[in-house]
Amino acid sequence: MSKLRLKISMSLDGFVAGPEQSVANPLGIGGMRLHEWIFPLAAWRGPHGLEGGTVSASTPVIEESLANIGATVMGRNMFGGHPGPWEARGPGKKRWDGWWGESPPFHHPVFVLTYHPRPPLALEGTTFTFVTDGIEAALDQARRAAGGKDVSLAGGAGVARQYLAAGLVDEMEINLVPTLLGSGERLFDGGGVDLCGLELVRTVAAPGVVHLKFAR
Amino acid sequence: MSKLRLKISMSLDGFVAGPEQSVANPLGIGGMRLHEWIFPLAAWRGPHGLEGGTVSASTPVIEESLANIGATVMGRNMFGGHPGPWEARGPGKKRWDGWWGESPPFHHPVFVLTYHPRPPLALEGTTFTFVTDGIEAALDQARRAAGGKDVSLAGGAGVARQYLAAGLVDEMEINLVPTLLGSGERLFDGGGVDLCGLELVRTVAAPGVVHLKFAR
Repeated sequence: MSKLRLKISMSLDGFVAGPEQSVANPLGIGGMRLHEWIFPLAAWRGPHGLEGGTVSASTPVIEESLANIGATVMGRNMFGGHPGPWEARGPGKKRWDGWWGESPPFHHPVFVLTYHPRPPLALEGTTFTFVTDGIEAALDQARRAAGGKDVSLAGGAGVARQYLAAGLVDEMEINLVPTLLGSGERLFDGGGVDLCGLELVRTVAAPGVVHLKFAR
Repeated sequence: MSKLRLKISMSLDGFVAGPEQSVANPLGIGGMRLHEWIFPLAAWRGPHGLEGGTVSASTPVIEESLANIGATVMGRNMFGGHPGPWEARGPGKKRWDGWWGESPPFHHPVFVLTYHPRPPLALEGTTFTFVTDGIEAALDQARRAAGGKDVSLAGGAGVARQYLAAGLVDEMEINLVPTLLGSGERLFDGGGVDLCGLELVRTVAAPGVVHLKFAR
């Protein structure tokens, strides 16, 4: 059975996004600091169409996170743009088609959990399918599309919390960034005390981040 | 100048004590799970007068945390017993003299931050001095008593937060325990975004715990 694998970056004080998330600042104030460790790395730059980059102890962790992934599930906020129905972006504005331009970095099917139906969006190498009937339906569709490979759970926090609470996450890589955001959105926030069998199985210390891998 | 060194255990969801802390359950519900990693270790058992024990990757971390410490500062809740004036424990009850019996494991002067004055308490090898004029006064007294050695900041969370916010902590060892407490008392809770120059300088993965050492 293919696994559902969550990867998410979290501050020392537990936040996966800063306060005052908005269309202009989707990670919230300071939220970009959770991701600065990854931008210089060749293992991240290559899949995003950028040349060059460095190698660190994070490199095999990133490579592992990208390997054997056949589909991605994400929440509406991660797909981004604006809340509410898709046609409600505002008069004169082009429909929101994601952050990634014409050639998203996924190169496999992506399933976006949303309350607002929308036809599939086929971009170069990546088709986004919008799922309105809940996390289990989205996971079922993603598993079928993954063709035996694993499914990546890309976040954000709300969707990650739902899958964790349902016990559906098979692996979780928390990229713990040794910084404080002070407020914002927490990964673990009233989610109870049950990791549903997930145990810490690997710790990797790298520049600007500690990778904590949980598995069953 | 002697350093102020904080060591504290924290859950993956950021709690250093569970909910419903009480005299009967001072760590709150589930709080003991933050400390289970340390009890089997010889490096902890020896200083607590217990024989035997194991060795792990945590051993040098514990040994380092105990080395070159000349005094300890702690909050009233960590000294424990009950809130309010010291004589208010209740009719027929013996005055609260700490959790540790006649021979506390410190073997150096301990300074307890409290709002309620009380004469010093001299036990076997350890004298507790009760400080009512704030964190800087307690640190000054502890530094003088430490005779050039470092000062240990033993917690709890409230006192740790105050010293961190004041920029007075020189080293911080967070023992991150890969478990969830769900609620309780957080180490980082509205304390802002400033680690006051503390940076992650060492990560040690050990059974049941990841040690994160911060220093300037």
